[in-house]
Amino acid sequence: MKYEVNDPVRLTDDTRAILAIDQTLLPDHIAYIRLESPEQMYGAIKNLQVRGAPCIGIFAAYAMFIQAKVFAQVSEDKESFYQQLHKFAKYLSLAMPSAVDLTWALKRMERTAANNMRRSFDTIVEALRKEAVEIHEHNIATCETIANFGLSLINDGDGILTYCNAGALATSRYGTALGPLILGSEKGMKFEAYVCETRPMLQGSRLTAYELSNAGIDTTLICDNMAAQVMKEGRIKAVFVGADRVAANGDTANKVGTYGLAILARTFRIPFYVFCPTSTIDPTCEDGSMIAVEERDPDEIKTAYFKSPVAPASVKCYNPSSDVTPARLITAIVTEDGINYPPFDFN
Amino acid sequence: MKYEVNDPVRLTDDTRAILAIDQTLLPDHIAYIRLESPEQMYGAIKNLQVRGAPCIGIFAAYAMFIQAKVFAQVSEDKESFYQQLHKFAKYLSLAMPSAVDLTWALKRMERTAANNMRRSFDTIVEALRKEAVEIHEHNIATCETIANFGLSLINDGDGILTYCNAGALATSRYGTALGPLILGSEKGMKFEAYVCETRPMLQGSRLTAYELSNAGIDTTLICDNMAAQVMKEGRIKAVFVGADRVAANGDTANKVGTYGLAILARTFRIPFYVFCPTSTIDPTCEDGSMIAVEERDPDEIKTAYFKSPVAPASVKCYNPSSDVTPARLITAIVTEDGINYPPFDFN
Repeated sequence: MKYEVNDPVRLTDDTRAILAIDQTLLPDHIAYIRLESPEQMYGAIKNLQVRGAPCIGIFAAYAMFIQAKVFAQVSEDKESFYQQLHKFAKYLSLAMPSAVDLTWALKRMERTAANNMRRSFDTIVEALRKEAVEIHEHNIATCETIANFGLSLINDGDGILTYCNAGALATSRYGTALGPLILGSEKGMKFEAYVCETRPMLQGSRLTAYELSNAGIDTTLICDNMAAQVMKEGRIKAVFVGADRVAANGDTANKVGTYGLAILARTFRIPFYVFCPTSTIDPTCEDGSMIAVEERDPDEIKTAYFKSPVAPASVKCYNPSSDVTPARLITAIVTEDGINYPPFDFN
Repeated sequence: MKYEVNDPVRLTDDTRAILAIDQTLLPDHIAYIRLESPEQMYGAIKNLQVRGAPCIGIFAAYAMFIQAKVFAQVSEDKESFYQQLHKFAKYLSLAMPSAVDLTWALKRMERTAANNMRRSFDTIVEALRKEAVEIHEHNIATCETIANFGLSLINDGDGILTYCNAGALATSRYGTALGPLILGSEKGMKFEAYVCETRPMLQGSRLTAYELSNAGIDTTLICDNMAAQVMKEGRIKAVFVGADRVAANGDTANKVGTYGLAILARTFRIPFYVFCPTSTIDPTCEDGSMIAVEERDPDEIKTAYFKSPVAPASVKCYNPSSDVTPARLITAIVTEDGINYPPFDFN
């Protein structure tokens, strides 16, 4: 079975624009948007049409290459070219200031330009193209390595519970937590994937269920509050989740609800695995107590996706975006460097 | 503060019909429907406009009184009257065959008619009216007693986490699990109620949040997957839930998600209380293993309430309606007879 959404972001054949899956329209419509102008690129990140930290980084790298080509044609000299590129990088970074991978990719592309400033415009632009492709391919390789390590943790026929979206749409090709299932499926293995819908923004139903079923994997959607029941019924052999940020001691911030799942998994003696690239590990963050939990818009709970408001207008909502799973509840943290078992020490 | 939805079901002033809050329209519209004909009464239960086991029982009792008045006017003799009443009871019971309280109330009303068959039509009809009012008032008294016991378990200012809907809309006046909060609020106490939205049918957002905020209680809605986070933040002093059925050993069937909440509460050392009338305890059911979990329509997860489907059409859903919380996770079961602590023995 061909896996169709392995590249949520790619260059157009004429290399003048980025083609990206509009993730806000999934799963109803699979629509690619063509992003050519700086304003279009900024808007795609701002409006969450392109989402997922590594995916935004890849997008930004291609964006820098495309705009560099334009600037090279209109610039009178290298100084003016570099100023325009720098200005664009600053502009794009403001589309999502909190995204670590966005800033990282923009800086890396700026450095590549700086390192080649004595060469011709053609050479600089080609160096930027190569750098963007390298960032993209490195992410794919990282995901594939993580997927291979993850696959060694499970067996053919296993039921795996997943949460939120840590698949190709958020990264590239295999994704992180979904990688082992997709890679195993390509090798002819069968899994039973249980997908938590992940309220309030439904990344599980909208994105993960879409990706896994597209990859030909037996996929069953449940509401988040049904996890204990499916665990009790013996359907789940392991829980696979991604991570937003991992502290040096292994405490892991991820989409709200991850912590509760980890407690349930421990209660039912089910292994609980975290998947992420090493870039997600923050050695400067000692432990989870240093990670702040952001509060999001109450309307995500009351009105988003619904035909009409599902709760009285006067009722308050508390909408924490993430929670921190203590390291003691994590069976292993899987990165491209290998399978890390506790006690974790990422200093 | 006046509590406005204390009677989801009541007789009209002319005693020719039932006025009921159409629960399918909440919280957008507070509309009362007038139910006079047998077909209207059947439809109200079938379409979940009237819901909640005790509430359906009260509704059925008034329905029997109203139809008895009609049958008394058109019947040539007592035999024909009784046959029509019996036929109506059978018809109404089919609107929701699984509802224990529906069958129970219809049988009790039939028995009242049978016990008075030698008297005049007027006397029979009056006996039925008294019986219906008695069923209604007994339910209110039971709920108030439960609320009083529950109130003794908490303190002014406490944060209480609730699940699904076990309020007045499902019963009468105080409800069961919500009773302590409403009664305490009437006495001038303040609570911080945290309401789990309760996917997929959102009884928490639509009904509980509506009832509690109407009662003037400080109410905060959360998604079900945020329970661990609010517990960890120290916001919750106790968890209050209702029950569909309690086994002799205390194992408790309730809306799916209750079991997971009980595990989280135990992990965070938060007391977990079940509230129900003694009629919900089934001494013939030894333990939870004898309670079957019904599977409901997958469309409740994918499409109900949403503007458009939130998951691919090809993706399966698993939608268990309930789960069984083991007695060992329950701090106490509160009925009109008192606060029952473990080991539970309801034989």
